[in-house]
Amino acid sequence: MTDLATVREVGLRDGLQLVKRTLPTDIKIEWCQTQAACGFREMEVTSFVPPKVIPQFADAESVLKAAQSISNMRAAVLVPNLKWGLQALDHGAKKITFVLSVSEAHNMANVRRTTDTSIAEFSELIAERNCRGLQDSVMMSVALATTFGCSLQGEVAEPRVYNVAEQVLMAGAQELNMADTVGYGNPIQVKRIFTEILQLADKVQVAAHFHDTRGMGLANAVAALEAGVREFDASLGGLGGCPFAKGASGNIATEDCVYLLESLGFATGINILAMLEVRKNLKDWLPDEPLEGKLLKAGLAATFE
Amino acid sequence: MTDLATVREVGLRDGLQLVKRTLPTDIKIEWCQTQAACGFREMEVTSFVPPKVIPQFADAESVLKAAQSISNMRAAVLVPNLKWGLQALDHGAKKITFVLSVSEAHNMANVRRTTDTSIAEFSELIAERNCRGLQDSVMMSVALATTFGCSLQGEVAEPRVYNVAEQVLMAGAQELNMADTVGYGNPIQVKRIFTEILQLADKVQVAAHFHDTRGMGLANAVAALEAGVREFDASLGGLGGCPFAKGASGNIATEDCVYLLESLGFATGINILAMLEVRKNLKDWLPDEPLEGKLLKAGLAATFE
Repeated sequence: MTDLATVREVGLRDGLQLVKRTLPTDIKIEWCQTQAACGFREMEVTSFVPPKVIPQFADAESVLKAAQSISNMRAAVLVPNLKWGLQALDHGAKKITFVLSVSEAHNMANVRRTTDTSIAEFSELIAERNCRGLQDSVMMSVALATTFGCSLQGEVAEPRVYNVAEQVLMAGAQELNMADTVGYGNPIQVKRIFTEILQLADKVQVAAHFHDTRGMGLANAVAALEAGVREFDASLGGLGGCPFAKGASGNIATEDCVYLLESLGFATGINILAMLEVRKNLKDWLPDEPLEGKLLKAGLAATFE
Repeated sequence: MTDLATVREVGLRDGLQLVKRTLPTDIKIEWCQTQAACGFREMEVTSFVPPKVIPQFADAESVLKAAQSISNMRAAVLVPNLKWGLQALDHGAKKITFVLSVSEAHNMANVRRTTDTSIAEFSELIAERNCRGLQDSVMMSVALATTFGCSLQGEVAEPRVYNVAEQVLMAGAQELNMADTVGYGNPIQVKRIFTEILQLADKVQVAAHFHDTRGMGLANAVAALEAGVREFDASLGGLGGCPFAKGASGNIATEDCVYLLESLGFATGINILAMLEVRKNLKDWLPDEPLEGKLLKAGLAATFE
């Protein structure tokens, strides 16, 4: 039996987060629809955040609504705190990813509260979801930013990572999404941390979110795979970054990540050639953004099945 | 004790091979000298090939001579056949890398003879070196191109790889440099093949030469490391390619490879910040070439020791 692995597109959220020019809503929806048609079963399509802070996501409601009308595709949204988590619930989000940073300094800079406060708000959001009777229809994920290091505080102690993970699991997280927000991770560290996290998480889903800031993104993905991770965030053309990571390039490129997984014998369910067509469109949609990813230029290997 | 790993710069050879504009000899020498000053102990500095075929290397003799005057730095040269191997010997090369392809189709295209003929010519070159009494002063390496697949012939059977490796070992090769010439390798395959090759090679040095054509270059380097490889070819700014691999980007970027190895706890002996200064110069030396590599843009992680 072939092992399955899932690549979740985060370009519409993490990718667009730092893009200054607002991408028109209809283009976002076209991106979402065309990429879903390639076989993507989950996409993080927007973020519920103050529009003053990130105007790019002022159309969150419309994008979410359109994305949720696509069949066989789970639309996830990212939220930074309880207030915006409630907004996401109000607007019918079916998967909410609550972001908090393991690094206290990064959490303060990113969401202006302590990590403990973020964890408490996540608990309240879970309680509110349950109060509304939505526990079976709304999945709650936590993205643990700066799991592998922090550009503001430096090293992030691993016991702290596991402690925060345990707290959000106790609060009811249905997914741990371990994020190398600033591209500090290396394969040895990644394998060690994911091995531990998969044990802690038991049956709760564990995902990996890598940035390719220093070129190690796919090597880290292989390390996470070896530890047992089967869920990977990636963004088309490697779009993305972090406002607190100077010079950071973006997420691992979706196209290269899918190709890697398929080359290693994992079935992703993605039509690679169709995906490359969407990747070509991305250039037209965001003509000013530098795009990464090698596969579009090189094409598939002649030996690729 | 810290494990050691060696990064050998091949930008002056593999990197420049496809660069149309001839880089002036004095710039090549400056590149060589400044990069050696960062702690690089081996560089492939040129190729002895017909100048009509690759005018870029018409100054091979001068570049080799200058490179050999740098202390603590081994200058290697690549040769495609016996005739040019003899030229390299005549000009006092101390390390000669004889390239042949495991793929028959690629060998025919690249050096216009069968792989068997190439192996026979390598044997003759060894015999000639020994005849001249140079067996202790001239190291003979074989680069096994298309070890991980071929863009012309497709799959390259692994038993064939091992058979060719055994033949060149029997002929007296002092290094096997397994090359993913067209960027077809994946980490599982890389680990499997290097594990086998390291056993076959016994005490003979084994090196890895990866291209980052489809983004897996550094993931493949980690796989080779795990198999036991400690010698890696790389080119500054990821310069390079292969004339028979359409759209291929170049070698793994030296700066990212060194950073990866150091992050994993291997001592490379390289001064990374000094290396990044040379990398900046590369942009001025080759203003028209697209350069890769993430480290220059992102800088070192704050946690990097």
